[in-house]
Amino acid sequence: MSGELQFHTSHGHYWASYSVENRRPDLAGFAVSSTSVYVCLLEGSTGATPSEEMNGTGNLMDFLDEPFPDVGTYEDFHTIDWLREKSRDTDRHRKITTKSKESYWELIKSLLDAWSGWVVMLLIGMLTGTLAGVIDLAVDWMTDLKEGVCLSALYYSREQCCWTSNETTFEDRDKCPQWQKWAELMTGHSEGAGAYVLNYFLYVLWALLFSFLAVSLVRVFAPYACGSGIPEIKTILSGFIIRGYLGKWTLLIKTVTLVLAVSSGLSLGKEGPLVHVACCCGNLFCSLFSKYSKNEGKRREVLSAAAAAGVSVAFGAPIGGVLFSLEEVSYYFPLKTLWRSFFAALVAAFTLRAINPFGNSRLVLFYVEYHTPWYMAELVPFILLGVFGGLWGALFIRGNIAWCRRRKTTLLGKYPVLEVIVITGITAVLAFPNPYTRRSTSELISELFNDCGALESSQLCDYVNNPNMSRPVDDIPDRPAGPGVYSALWQLALALIFKIVITIFTFGMKIPSGLFIPSMMAYHHHDWIIFKNWCRPGADCVTPGLYAMVGAAACLGGVTRMTVSLVVIMFELTGGLEYIVPLMAAAVTSKWVADAFGKEGIYESHIQLNGYPYLDVRDEFTHRTLATDVMRPRRSEPPLAVLTQDSTTVEDVETLIKDTDYNGFPVVVSRESERLIGFVQRRELTVAIKTARQKQDGVVSSSVVYFTEDNPQVAEACDPQPLKLRRILNLSPFTVTDHTPMETVVDIFRKLGLRQCLVTRSGRLLGIITKKDVLRHMAQMMNQDPESIMFN
Amino acid sequence: MSGELQFHTSHGHYWASYSVENRRPDLAGFAVSSTSVYVCLLEGSTGATPSEEMNGTGNLMDFLDEPFPDVGTYEDFHTIDWLREKSRDTDRHRKITTKSKESYWELIKSLLDAWSGWVVMLLIGMLTGTLAGVIDLAVDWMTDLKEGVCLSALYYSREQCCWTSNETTFEDRDKCPQWQKWAELMTGHSEGAGAYVLNYFLYVLWALLFSFLAVSLVRVFAPYACGSGIPEIKTILSGFIIRGYLGKWTLLIKTVTLVLAVSSGLSLGKEGPLVHVACCCGNLFCSLFSKYSKNEGKRREVLSAAAAAGVSVAFGAPIGGVLFSLEEVSYYFPLKTLWRSFFAALVAAFTLRAINPFGNSRLVLFYVEYHTPWYMAELVPFILLGVFGGLWGALFIRGNIAWCRRRKTTLLGKYPVLEVIVITGITAVLAFPNPYTRRSTSELISELFNDCGALESSQLCDYVNNPNMSRPVDDIPDRPAGPGVYSALWQLALALIFKIVITIFTFGMKIPSGLFIPSMMAYHHHDWIIFKNWCRPGADCVTPGLYAMVGAAACLGGVTRMTVSLVVIMFELTGGLEYIVPLMAAAVTSKWVADAFGKEGIYESHIQLNGYPYLDVRDEFTHRTLATDVMRPRRSEPPLAVLTQDSTTVEDVETLIKDTDYNGFPVVVSRESERLIGFVQRRELTVAIKTARQKQDGVVSSSVVYFTEDNPQVAEACDPQPLKLRRILNLSPFTVTDHTPMETVVDIFRKLGLRQCLVTRSGRLLGIITKKDVLRHMAQMMNQDPESIMFN
Repeated sequence: MSGELQFHTSHGHYWASYSVENRRPDLAGFAVSSTSVYVCLLEGSTGATPSEEMNGTGNLMDFLDEPFPDVGTYEDFHTIDWLREKSRDTDRHRKITTKSKESYWELIKSLLDAWSGWVVMLLIGMLTGTLAGVIDLAVDWMTDLKEGVCLSALYYSREQCCWTSNETTFEDRDKCPQWQKWAELMTGHSEGAGAYVLNYFLYVLWALLFSFLAVSLVRVFAPYACGSGIPEIKTILSGFIIRGYLGKWTLLIKTVTLVLAVSSGLSLGKEGPLVHVACCCGNLFCSLFSKYSKNEGKRREVLSAAAAAGVSVAFGAPIGGVLFSLEEVSYYFPLKTLWRSFFAALVAAFTLRAINPFGNSRLVLFYVEYHTPWYMAELVPFILLGVFGGLWGALFIRGNIAWCRRRKTTLLGKYPVLEVIVITGITAVLAFPNPYTRRSTSELISELFNDCGALESSQLCDYVNNPNMSRPVDDIPDRPAGPGVYSALWQLALALIFKIVITIFTFGMKIPSGLFIPSMMAYHHHDWIIFKNWCRPGADCVTPGLYAMVGAAACLGGVTRMTVSLVVIMFELTGGLEYIVPLMAAAVTSKWVADAFGKEGIYESHIQLNGYPYLDVRDEFTHRTLATDVMRPRRSEPPLAVLTQDSTTVEDVETLIKDTDYNGFPVVVSRESERLIGFVQRRELTVAIKTARQKQDGVVSSSVVYFTEDNPQVAEACDPQPLKLRRILNLSPFTVTDHTPMETVVDIFRKLGLRQCLVTRSGRLLGIITKKDVLRHMAQMMNQDPESIMFN
Repeated sequence: MSGELQFHTSHGHYWASYSVENRRPDLAGFAVSSTSVYVCLLEGSTGATPSEEMNGTGNLMDFLDEPFPDVGTYEDFHTIDWLREKSRDTDRHRKITTKSKESYWELIKSLLDAWSGWVVMLLIGMLTGTLAGVIDLAVDWMTDLKEGVCLSALYYSREQCCWTSNETTFEDRDKCPQWQKWAELMTGHSEGAGAYVLNYFLYVLWALLFSFLAVSLVRVFAPYACGSGIPEIKTILSGFIIRGYLGKWTLLIKTVTLVLAVSSGLSLGKEGPLVHVACCCGNLFCSLFSKYSKNEGKRREVLSAAAAAGVSVAFGAPIGGVLFSLEEVSYYFPLKTLWRSFFAALVAAFTLRAINPFGNSRLVLFYVEYHTPWYMAELVPFILLGVFGGLWGALFIRGNIAWCRRRKTTLLGKYPVLEVIVITGITAVLAFPNPYTRRSTSELISELFNDCGALESSQLCDYVNNPNMSRPVDDIPDRPAGPGVYSALWQLALALIFKIVITIFTFGMKIPSGLFIPSMMAYHHHDWIIFKNWCRPGADCVTPGLYAMVGAAACLGGVTRMTVSLVVIMFELTGGLEYIVPLMAAAVTSKWVADAFGKEGIYESHIQLNGYPYLDVRDEFTHRTLATDVMRPRRSEPPLAVLTQDSTTVEDVETLIKDTDYNGFPVVVSRESERLIGFVQRRELTVAIKTARQKQDGVVSSSVVYFTEDNPQVAEACDPQPLKLRRILNLSPFTVTDHTPMETVVDIFRKLGLRQCLVTRSGRLLGIITKKDVLRHMAQMMNQDPESIMFN
């Protein structure tokens, strides 16, 4: 009885046993309290245990996201069977190919079908690029709105406003007349303590307003729009169904709240959310083509490509996007998806370039052009940066996870809106006085990455230049650092500490929040400090921008544990092709160091924290257990619920369906021989019996259900009329023997994307292993022997 | 009897049935003529059918490449079982982990073991980088040796020679006094018809000498060193064993002959062979660590990384290398291998940079720095370039394969040395008069990629500049093209046609030959022609170097069908980060166009031509066949050779081993029930019986072999003493049901890397499917229904 696909309504149990700190360990099924509309906000971290969320918001989201028609074979919060999806697609494809020979019309249809993948990619790329452009423009405008307003056109950001003012000399650009700070506009005074306080007050007020709007929108309309979304997308791509997570409603709200959240000045980036937005676009366009909307496996191929497009526009790094999708997000990534992702990323980047939100017709966000080559000896500090990055990554993950756990387990989690408001308030209050934290993060990064030239107007270089203005300005490194540099470095150091601390608390709050930019941020400052010490001796001083870049890579590497995609993103981001080796050195070191403190990156940690059923390809299973130790039923449990091929009556089947909640039942020759002949899905069985009862004469409760091959004698002779169900029988269920080592079973589940696997011995059916059994077993073994992690 | 792993000695059969034009269809086993030492040269293409080659050269190669001790479980030319290798490694790992708790010494040993992967990567990177540097220097020197010699130091190449001469003004650099052409040196005259003829003659002579040396070395010492090696490496990485292919001897000879072949001026590149060289290095270092030398699966992980290091040094493109390994070469590429490849590629690039063969301390080979942004409208020509690239790729593959097939089937194949000499002669004779073909290919590419500046000294720009010298030289595109441009373009056009034709004949000859550079070559010229037409209207003329770059990418894309790795390589190669979008557009278009003419790239075509057992991940199997159609024994054949668990005598087993040549036997409960309990390897069975006969008292021919679990009653009571062999029984053989669709079976073989799979129905053993059965079936279905390719 037990042991089979027990996930149908009792997955609450599963989560409970899997994630240690779940608040409601005995929660079973869907019928939970109506307060769960706020669960995403309550549960903390990047998302709640999905079962709870779904219910409360179901009605609301149905409004925009009708359940996918016809798909239906998978319930919400179930895992898909990749092999089955694949073979369904092949069937469909075969049908089309056969038909295409019949007429020209069918041939055209089949060609359209073959090209629909590329069409979807084109659409995803275009929409993602457009959304990213709009978000960039809106964020620019709203970030500046906190400080002041453009009089010539209210919808201009400061840069646009000053750009059109024609005063483009370097001195005057910072104070163009059309751009007025709030104090200036309201009181007429732009200087003085009063004006500063008024500006300060309005800055904080705007920030609070934006974040309140963001958290309220998320809370009321789309709980799934919170967080970075990457952990959930990883889970979905691995074959889990979370309906509505990638819906139209989520897309809309996430786009709006992302702008609000970033503009509010919170220490978060738009990169992760952009991936979520892109995946929503992908899902949206999937519904246009039955090829994708009706096949969960094919849909995930599209989503993988959409993730690539998301990163592509987030950083202006199309290749980095493809690699990110490959290395970090995707589960099943065949070569065909690689090419399609490549195409989607290309179109997205191209669209973004056409919109040109940065006004420089470059794809590259923080374009740097250093001319100094680096020296071998510099590898030492680069590797040190890697070490620091790794340490910071490990620290960040620990701190963030501890905070999210606290949010989940204490009263804190009950007041998500308050939390957001408080954090925003603290951020805004602390950020305003320091010029490095007041501005938007990406602006700051761009400044830090840049090498100081004599003509550079950036504030940091002003600091460097000011004390030396009397001297000939020709070679910056040789000049001694003046007091301006010290104050700049102090401010940067303070900004660094502030950002590190605040980011730990921010990531995981219930508004769209990305990690990339804050992570990169944190490190630059650090670089500057190192640079300070390194550079003081004088002589052969090194490119500070390069250090900032390497430091940023190291830090991001420590947090996310990316390597190849990280380096590609970094050098697509900066154009610093010459510096691949330093970047690689730092990224690899950072990964090593961070791995020593724990194998999981931030996304995996959040997946684990939330107890998603994610079978990580990186976890190697090295224990000596066998399939027989994991399969259900266990020795003490009642025997497996099976059907026989020719001796079960309709009534028996109906009773079995009513009494159990398994997703399917194995069919055997007879209860004595226990020879397995196939597997039948609960859903298909229910539908078949219902249809037969309504439409087929003579099928009554005492009719025998036959799964055998057609046998006219039996069929005619019997009374009552038998019910033949061979057509719904899966004749090729996946089996392993009871002696199969679990490492092999894990490998099979992972690589073939199975949902369940039957266990036999000498041809006799013994039990069943589901994906959840595998995950539960892995978690158990991991807790039992945490040391083994070290030796991977 | 039939149906099981029939590959043991009769793989000749297999190849015969698989590759249509095999010359000796009834060749069976190893006992072939002693002429097979030349087979690699005779068989044409990038390698002979491996069975034949191995024999003749076996003795010779044993001299340096002793067979790997202990591995032994796989015979030469067999496929490995990935799952089994993986579980062997986990066992080993478990043992070490357990031991490590016993003492500090064991702990240190276990840590060393855990780090050995990184150590191997470091060593591979260093050796590969060093070899690449040496090859680059040697090629430079020897290429120039064809034209003249440096008097100040004989071992200087022309550039080094002239560089040290201090005459570094642009005018004088081309005629520095220390560098003398042969005619000048021998006759004292540097001008005139006589000198020209003498130079011409010596140029051809040197070329012939180099190529003769190369082909002779390959022929006598290491037949496996011929060709590009990439098809074979793909096959090896997919799990095939070709012993000696990656041996020390091959490494040595390939390195030497590669230099000779490239220097001889043949239309071939060093990129593919460098990958082979890197893989040889990888194999070499594997033998230092039992973790890798004793496990064919782990060894292949190292080889994948080595391939990345090879491309990394070939192009100075570490990230491109990793992607090339991932997209093009590797079969099993877990994330761990991604990181290791990344590291190996990094070290290799770094080592190469330290050696600095190009004297510019850049990793980037053909560094270009364009400043012109490209315009949207230019996408049209870029896409056109993609189309041409695709067409050229398809044409090249067709032509080359047709030629290789001809070489295999006609007398031509009998005279490989002559063929090489003739082609070299033709190449040299035709190449000398045209300045664009006389020089080394990479030099030319570097020139073509470059944008013409007013100060540029390159010949092509001289042509452009000369006719306009009277005018103010400021903006090249606005100047009308003078007669110099026409002659340059004519020469380029001739060079293009010549290169296209000669490359088709060259690739596949029996000397190390890479494809990349020639492929890229061919296209540039084309670009120039297009550029000519495009640019004549005057006005907004575009960057010709960019067109060359995009064209090169398109062309390479058409030939190899790479996309992402290609773009990354191209922009790592050139530093043209701004031009990702054009490159991507061209690469994708080129792939589409070329795919329309046939799914396979040049490497896959050669794999097919040679009939390697390569299960391509890209071929989708969409036919409706079932496992029962593919399994052996077929209906007409005798039943499967099985052992029973407790009723077979030692004599029965010995007879079975003697009468059949299968690699293993399934073990069933009894012949009547046919319930499968396990699978036993032929090799282990042989060893176990031999050992038992020698060492275990009472084991005689009539002893019963028991595969059951220990049962003392049976064991004691019996006379003669039974032989218990459960320990060698694999209790978890992989099974599928007879109704499993072949598409699923293919998927399982591909993803799990199986060697064989048993077929059951209702728990009864019916037959067996081996990897070769799968491949043969796929080939059959493909030939039967070639149309289906279109709709993938």
